[in-house]
Amino acid sequence: MATDQAQSEQRGETYNQFEERITRISNVGNAAGILRWDQEVVMPEEGTPARAQQLSALSSISHELLTADETGDLLESLESAELGDEQQAAVREVRRQYDRETSVPQELVEEISETSANAHPTWKQAKEEDDFEQFAPTLEKLVELKREYAEHIDPDADPYAVLFADYEPYLDLETAERVLERLREELVPLIDAIQESDVDLATNTFAGVSEPRSDGSEDGTSSVEFDDDDQEALARDVLDALGYDWGRGRLDTAPHPFSSGTQFDARVTTRFEEDDLLGSLTSTIHEFGHANYTLGLPDEAYGTPLGDSRDLTVHESQSRLWENHVGRSQPFWEQFLPTVADRFPELEDATPEEAYEAANQVYDDNLIRVEADELTYHLHIVIRFEIERDLISGDLDVEDVPEVWNDKYEEYLGVRPETDAEGCLQDIHWSHGSFGYFPTYSLGSVLAAQLYAAAEDDLGDLDDRIEAGEFDDLNGWLREQIHQHGCRYTTPDLIEEATGEEFTADYFLEYVKSKYGELYDLDDY
Amino acid sequence: MATDQAQSEQRGETYNQFEERITRISNVGNAAGILRWDQEVVMPEEGTPARAQQLSALSSISHELLTADETGDLLESLESAELGDEQQAAVREVRRQYDRETSVPQELVEEISETSANAHPTWKQAKEEDDFEQFAPTLEKLVELKREYAEHIDPDADPYAVLFADYEPYLDLETAERVLERLREELVPLIDAIQESDVDLATNTFAGVSEPRSDGSEDGTSSVEFDDDDQEALARDVLDALGYDWGRGRLDTAPHPFSSGTQFDARVTTRFEEDDLLGSLTSTIHEFGHANYTLGLPDEAYGTPLGDSRDLTVHESQSRLWENHVGRSQPFWEQFLPTVADRFPELEDATPEEAYEAANQVYDDNLIRVEADELTYHLHIVIRFEIERDLISGDLDVEDVPEVWNDKYEEYLGVRPETDAEGCLQDIHWSHGSFGYFPTYSLGSVLAAQLYAAAEDDLGDLDDRIEAGEFDDLNGWLREQIHQHGCRYTTPDLIEEATGEEFTADYFLEYVKSKYGELYDLDDY
Repeated sequence: MATDQAQSEQRGETYNQFEERITRISNVGNAAGILRWDQEVVMPEEGTPARAQQLSALSSISHELLTADETGDLLESLESAELGDEQQAAVREVRRQYDRETSVPQELVEEISETSANAHPTWKQAKEEDDFEQFAPTLEKLVELKREYAEHIDPDADPYAVLFADYEPYLDLETAERVLERLREELVPLIDAIQESDVDLATNTFAGVSEPRSDGSEDGTSSVEFDDDDQEALARDVLDALGYDWGRGRLDTAPHPFSSGTQFDARVTTRFEEDDLLGSLTSTIHEFGHANYTLGLPDEAYGTPLGDSRDLTVHESQSRLWENHVGRSQPFWEQFLPTVADRFPELEDATPEEAYEAANQVYDDNLIRVEADELTYHLHIVIRFEIERDLISGDLDVEDVPEVWNDKYEEYLGVRPETDAEGCLQDIHWSHGSFGYFPTYSLGSVLAAQLYAAAEDDLGDLDDRIEAGEFDDLNGWLREQIHQHGCRYTTPDLIEEATGEEFTADYFLEYVKSKYGELYDLDDY
Repeated sequence: MATDQAQSEQRGETYNQFEERITRISNVGNAAGILRWDQEVVMPEEGTPARAQQLSALSSISHELLTADETGDLLESLESAELGDEQQAAVREVRRQYDRETSVPQELVEEISETSANAHPTWKQAKEEDDFEQFAPTLEKLVELKREYAEHIDPDADPYAVLFADYEPYLDLETAERVLERLREELVPLIDAIQESDVDLATNTFAGVSEPRSDGSEDGTSSVEFDDDDQEALARDVLDALGYDWGRGRLDTAPHPFSSGTQFDARVTTRFEEDDLLGSLTSTIHEFGHANYTLGLPDEAYGTPLGDSRDLTVHESQSRLWENHVGRSQPFWEQFLPTVADRFPELEDATPEEAYEAANQVYDDNLIRVEADELTYHLHIVIRFEIERDLISGDLDVEDVPEVWNDKYEEYLGVRPETDAEGCLQDIHWSHGSFGYFPTYSLGSVLAAQLYAAAEDDLGDLDDRIEAGEFDDLNGWLREQIHQHGCRYTTPDLIEEATGEEFTADYFLEYVKSKYGELYDLDDY
C-alpha cells in the first residue's frame, strides 16, 4: 500500500511537471496568436520588421521547450505509468508533436521557413504579372524541401501522407482520397445536371433594386453599394442571432478573414465589399463557426491538449456547419431576412425564398476557389489535391502544373482558365509550403453534414428551431459532442462518439442532392 | 598579428552570441508589451485568465533567459575584452539588469508579484468604500516585501534608494531629493502668491457657450458636451500637427491613457470625457511625447539597449516637454485654436490668449494628482515621495499614512482631504508595490525644462516655430540629442551631452516663475 501510494504521488508529480511544461508552450503559442491577430488587424504598416522578429523568437522558444530532453524524459516516464484516459490523451498528443519536431533537423525547419518567407513575394509578383515561370523555381524548391521534411519524419511512409498529417493527423490519407474521389464522381454529374437545368434562381436578390441591363437581362448587375458601416452592423446582428459570446470575443475587419484565439478570447474577423453583401455575411458566419468551437473548449483544461481544438477537419466542420447548414438554409432566411431588410431597406421586398435561392446559386463559369458555391467548391479542392499529391510523389513536374491545372478545370468544371493568375497561381497555400492542407476544406464540409444529420437525429426539428432563431440546442449539442472534448479523442474516435458511425461522405452527398435537386428541379435527384 | 585577429574574431563571435541572447529577451518583452496593449485596448473582458497566464509565461521565460549562467559567462567574457563604446554600453546595461535579477530569489519575485496582483482589488475596494483599514495590511506586507527585495540587491544601501533605482537607475537618490526639496521650497511660495493674486484667468474657455450660474458667476459651469467622435478627430488633428508617424503608430482609447511599443510601432492611447476637452487634448499630447521618443530610437539597434529608451526620467521629460512647453504655450494656442474651433464651433469666439489661460489655470482646491496643474502637480509628488521614503525606512508606520498625508496636503497646498479615497488611496502605484516611481514624474518635468532651454539655445525662435506649426526642428533636435542614443549614455551623461550641464532644476524654476508670474501678474516673479 505504502509503495503504491508513493508511486501514485510520484506519478502525480511527474504529470504536474509535464502539464506545467506543455502549458508554458501553449501560452507562448497563444501569445504568438495574439501577435498575429494584431499584425493582421491593427498593427501599423511599418511594424513588420519588429513583429517578424518577435514571432520568430516565440516560435524558437516554443520549439526548444517542446524538443528539450526534459520533455522526452517526462513523456517516457508517463508512458510507462498508469494514467487516466484524459492524461493518456494529453500524453499521446504531445508525444506525436514531440516525435515530429525532434525528427526534423532545425536547419531544415529554418530553411523551409526562410524559403517560404521569400516565396510569398515571388508568388505575389508572379500572380500579378500572370507569369508562372517566375514562381516555378521557388515551387520546385519548396516541393523538394517538403519531401525532405517528410522523409525525416517517416522514411517509410508516402511523403504526401506525412505532409497531410500535419493538418489532419488522424484521418489517414486513404480515407481522404476515398472521400475526395467519391465527391468528384458524384458531384461532377450533379453539377452537369444543374448546368443543364432550365431553372433560373433569384440570383439577383442581393443586388438590391437592380436596373435591367441594356439587353434586358437582370443577371449580375449590382446597382446598389452596400455601406461598410451598415454591413458591420449587420455582421454584429448575425453574430448576436447565432449567440456569439461577446464577453469572450470581438469582430474586426481583415483583408483575409480569419478567426483565432482561445476559449477565453476567440475573435472573428470579416471583410466588407460594397457589391457583395452576401459574401461578407456568409464569411462572418463561417468565422463564427470556428470561433464558436474555440469558445466551447473547456476552460479548466486551458493550455493542455484537452483544452485545445482538434485538427483542421473538425475545425472546418464547425465553420461549414454554421455557414452552410444554417446560414444557407431556407429557415435561416425566413428568420434573418427581416433583420437584413432593417439594415438595407432596398431588400425589403425580397422574399426568404429568393434570398435562399441567391445564397445557393451554382456558378457555371467560376474559376476562383474562394468565390465558389457549396458544390463546385469541392472540385476546386479535388484538382488541387490531385496536383499536389502528384507533385510530391514526383509523378508531376512543376513545369507541367499550369497545363494539368487547366485540363482538370475543363474536365471537372467545364471551364478553362485563360491565365495562370486565374489558374494555378490563385491560392497562397503552396507559397507557404503548405502541401496537404487543401483536402481538409472538403473533409470539413463532409463532416459538417454528418454532424448536422446526427444532431437532427438527436434533437429533431432543427429547421423549426432555426426558423425560430433558436440556436441554443444545436450549439449545446455541438458543445457536448465535439467542443468540450478538446483533443481527448482522435478525430475518427470523436466522429464515432458523436455520430455513432465512421467518417462518411453519405450525409454530405444526400444533403447536396436533396437540396440542389429541389432548387434546380432535377428529375434524378 | 594572427593572434590579434583570432582574438578579435573570437570577441566578435562572443558579442554576436550576447546580442542574439539579449535580442531574444527583448523580443519576448516586446511581445508582452503587445499583449498588455491588447489587454488594455481591445481584449474582451473575460479574456483575463488566459492573458494573465500568457504574460506570466513570457515574464518567466524572459527572467530565465536573463539570469541563465550563459548570460553571466558572456558578460564576464565581454567585460574582459576590448570593446567599442557602443558595445561597452550594451554590456553595462545588461550587466546591471543581470546583477539585480540574479540577486533576488525567484520565490520572493513571485511572492511580490502575487501579493501585488491580490493587492489591486483590495486597494480598489478600499478606495471605493473609503476605508484605508482594508488596505493597510496589504500595504504593510508590500512594504516589507520590497524592503526585503532591496536588501537582496544591495544590503549596504538605503533600501529606498535601491527601489528608486528600479525606475531611475542613474540619477542617484540624493540628486532626486535635492531637486524635490528645491521644488517644494520654491513652489509653495509661488503657489501662495498665485492664490493671493487678483487675476482671474479665462478658465471657462473650454466650457464652451456657458450659461451663468444662478448666482451670476460663470466659473466651472460646463454647458456643452463635447462629442467623443469629434474629440477623437481633434486628437488625430493634434497628432498630425505635431508630426506623429502614423505608419508606425495608432491612436486608441483606454481607461488610463498610456503609450507603448518599439521604434517600429509606438502607439498612443487617450480617453475622452464629455466635459473635459482640454484634458483629453493635453493627455494626447503627453502620450505623443512618449511615443515620439520611442519612434526616435535607432531602427538598426532594435532589440539591444542601444535601441531601447533610457529610463523613466528621460521618458517623462519627453512627454512633459510636448505637453507643457509646447501644448500649454501661447504660440501653440495661436496656431492650434482654429483647428479646435473647426471641430467645435462653440469655441469659435475664444481667443488664443483665453485658451492659453484656460490651459494654465492653477487650482486652489484640487486634491487629485492626475487633475493637477503644472505647478501644484509637483507638491502632490513631493508628498508621496516623502511618505514612501519614510515608509520604506521605517520612520513612518502604515497606520499613520492617512494623517500624515492630510497634514502635508494642508501644509503644502492649503487643502485637507476629507476622505482617504480623495487622499492617500487615490493612486494605484503602491498597490503595485511601486515605491520610488513617483519622483520620476517631477524629475521628468524638470529635465523637460532643461532640454527645452537647451533646444532654444541651439535653435532659437522656438516660439515662432510653434506658432507657425513647425515642429520638425525641435523634434530633430530631440532625435539628435536624446532619442537616437538609446541607452548608450547613462542619464547624467546623456543630459550633459545634450545640454552641456549637469541635471538642474534651474530652468524649470525659471520657466514656471516667468510663465506664472506673467499670467497672474505677480510682482515678485
